[in-house]
Amino acid sequence: MRKKDLSLETIVTLAKSRGFVFPGSEIYGGLANSWDYGPIGVLLKNHLRDAWWNFFVEQRGDMFGIDAAILMNPKVWEASGHVKNFTDPMVECKHCHKRFRVDQEPFSNSTAPFADIPCPNCETKGQYTEPRQFNLLFETELGSVVNEKQKIYLRGELAQAMFVDFKRVVDAMHPKLPFGIAQVGRVFRNEITPGNFTYRTLEFDLMEFEYFIREAEWEASFEYWVAQMKQWFSRIGIPEDALRVREQAPDERAHYSKRTVDLEYETPFGWKELGAVAYRTDFDVKQHAEASGLDLRYTDPHTQEKFFPHVIEPTVGLTRLLLFALLEAYDEEEVNGEKRVVLRLAPQIAPYQVAVLPLSKKDELTTIAKPLADQLRQRMSTDYDETQSIGKRYRRQDEIGTPWCVTVDFETRNDQAVTIRDRDSMQQERIPIAEVPKYLQDKMLAHS
Amino acid sequence: MRKKDLSLETIVTLAKSRGFVFPGSEIYGGLANSWDYGPIGVLLKNHLRDAWWNFFVEQRGDMFGIDAAILMNPKVWEASGHVKNFTDPMVECKHCHKRFRVDQEPFSNSTAPFADIPCPNCETKGQYTEPRQFNLLFETELGSVVNEKQKIYLRGELAQAMFVDFKRVVDAMHPKLPFGIAQVGRVFRNEITPGNFTYRTLEFDLMEFEYFIREAEWEASFEYWVAQMKQWFSRIGIPEDALRVREQAPDERAHYSKRTVDLEYETPFGWKELGAVAYRTDFDVKQHAEASGLDLRYTDPHTQEKFFPHVIEPTVGLTRLLLFALLEAYDEEEVNGEKRVVLRLAPQIAPYQVAVLPLSKKDELTTIAKPLADQLRQRMSTDYDETQSIGKRYRRQDEIGTPWCVTVDFETRNDQAVTIRDRDSMQQERIPIAEVPKYLQDKMLAHS
Repeated sequence: MRKKDLSLETIVTLAKSRGFVFPGSEIYGGLANSWDYGPIGVLLKNHLRDAWWNFFVEQRGDMFGIDAAILMNPKVWEASGHVKNFTDPMVECKHCHKRFRVDQEPFSNSTAPFADIPCPNCETKGQYTEPRQFNLLFETELGSVVNEKQKIYLRGELAQAMFVDFKRVVDAMHPKLPFGIAQVGRVFRNEITPGNFTYRTLEFDLMEFEYFIREAEWEASFEYWVAQMKQWFSRIGIPEDALRVREQAPDERAHYSKRTVDLEYETPFGWKELGAVAYRTDFDVKQHAEASGLDLRYTDPHTQEKFFPHVIEPTVGLTRLLLFALLEAYDEEEVNGEKRVVLRLAPQIAPYQVAVLPLSKKDELTTIAKPLADQLRQRMSTDYDETQSIGKRYRRQDEIGTPWCVTVDFETRNDQAVTIRDRDSMQQERIPIAEVPKYLQDKMLAHS
Repeated sequence: MRKKDLSLETIVTLAKSRGFVFPGSEIYGGLANSWDYGPIGVLLKNHLRDAWWNFFVEQRGDMFGIDAAILMNPKVWEASGHVKNFTDPMVECKHCHKRFRVDQEPFSNSTAPFADIPCPNCETKGQYTEPRQFNLLFETELGSVVNEKQKIYLRGELAQAMFVDFKRVVDAMHPKLPFGIAQVGRVFRNEITPGNFTYRTLEFDLMEFEYFIREAEWEASFEYWVAQMKQWFSRIGIPEDALRVREQAPDERAHYSKRTVDLEYETPFGWKELGAVAYRTDFDVKQHAEASGLDLRYTDPHTQEKFFPHVIEPTVGLTRLLLFALLEAYDEEEVNGEKRVVLRLAPQIAPYQVAVLPLSKKDELTTIAKPLADQLRQRMSTDYDETQSIGKRYRRQDEIGTPWCVTVDFETRNDQAVTIRDRDSMQQERIPIAEVPKYLQDKMLAHS
């Protein structure tokens, strides 16, 4: 089905009922569009994270991971420009005191003072303050000393840690240009959250690296990373033709960037950013060198030349990717006059790669099915389910995207074989028990 | 060597120079004992995290993971008792305004008003305020509306999310008692950080689950989980005889707990907590049911009886575990009159399981070594290093704990074989190239 015609509500409902995503702090009425990942969602999220880390870090020789503290010295955010520039332009309705982003509808279609626009909250017309910049960094206070309480920030992006730790990484690992510093982690932005499920939230996970190059290489490197990103998205189930590469206009780009493209996916709420590739020039490390007074330049091991490398930054929003993977995988079809809902997730990222289902709870079946599940668990993500009718269990596995179901039935004791059902074709094959692990591993390899 | 005789400084120096752990925000003078994990440290950290998740979640049928938001509705922390009780008792020196924990030395050995104790900071004697409770929750403000700024907290522990989401998990997964809800994630505590490297920090990662049981089972379940924890620590390289199980005294336990044991490891700075098992009774879910006005009880699927399950909570500090794993693995020995430093890390958690080292940078060796490294990368964590002398490269691999080094030498082209060096025995074996992957996988299996 066409994904943009899919209702977001359909995904939200499935996500809640099947254990992918729950509203955060729900029993207390929630908190500003925050979300928790449930037992099925956390498997999908971990598999996406691991697939990214494997492709962009482990399988390469030129990428170095880090995992930095979320709380950093506030001088980091002063030097990076975030304290000054990490802002949204907003107006406040003088009547109800709600704030609204001026760069979003209905304000973005008009110019200040917005005399004709009714307040989206209280409908009072045109009673707005002048547009002002509001900073997106969450603030908190550090301190065990009353008179020395120090204002610090929750990180608003991952990138600064890679720049702040640049010299340490170089000194410990002695990498040669080009090389990258990568990180997966949570960031926080105190912004108005317009909803759209998990698309825009106060906290979210990014997967990102800074790839350090010589200036002359930047255009080739930029193209290379856009292509690598597309290749990876395609591997985990978002094909290239589902993506749009959108060039950011000069006035849209961050202050440090000479070129940025957004990789966008068509959702029920429009084309939305899934990731981006930005050319950050040599702005960041240079900036930190200036602010800290330290020499953070890279030294060429052959010529001993010292310089600030330039940077290409490919970023993926992990939590956005999870949402878009659900949208892309969702399918409905009619089978025997009934609607079948199926998540056609790539086997590599599916919450469970296989489910073992004994046809009944009787010992004669479970004594075969349980050890088989335990055996499979050592090789792949495995579910075991003996509740409900087999039809309902297939439906559940379809809805959480399990590519293969192994059914142990009353013939199994006689023929030492089980039935393996393919999620997408619904074809069933009879396979000897002893061959099941290899059969599934071959299937997985064929899909990777 | 005896670990308690090891100087912490030795580990700190190794950790910095070899890319395990760097001071956070170091170029700006740091921030309150915060630390960043470098390229080697993040591999070790991920392997510890994955080993825990695999053992306690993936290999079991009764454990359900979640990944909850760090920012929760403040009512969560009111209901849990954290806003009121999550405190450290402190005094402030009236002279220098530094604060100190009364339950730690030198104050813990004395009673208020501490007239004889010189201030640990400015050495003024006995000029302290009355002891007061200081809350450990970091505060921040949420809000796009001036008059409605809402004070919220950074989570001070993982457990509350498992209780708040308890009903949602039960409704989505229909688990039968006993079962667990597990989480790995970062928590924040605004406390005085006495240092000891990464032992006590403002933010750190926990790995934890709440195991829901019937009240009658609590003692057996408690013992079972203490034993499971020990078994897992032993698997990842911290043997049972390196641990001490310390019973918390009644006045030491959290207000909700009927029994808590700390699993302690003997560090250079004393016996310190690595993890804990707590019996939390049915306090938490009941508390949230009361505060939210919702029915959060579990319904027995057979008898339809509704009740609040009791809870056993096994917790491991991931970042502490990493430090203790380094301490436990660190060894020095004399080889040919020189000191050899080696980290005897379990292969499962070692940053790299194997390093491929061509004896020289010449094409005739690297054209064999590079493809071999690429092949191994698909099966295990693999380093490739062609810089420096082979002796220096062995030394580096020993110091980052790589169990096996594969050396491609000038004979390799003739005999199609390589030398595999064992980190611990330093024995070398000549193995045909084609057999290297299987050789290493068998070695890894033998160690797991």
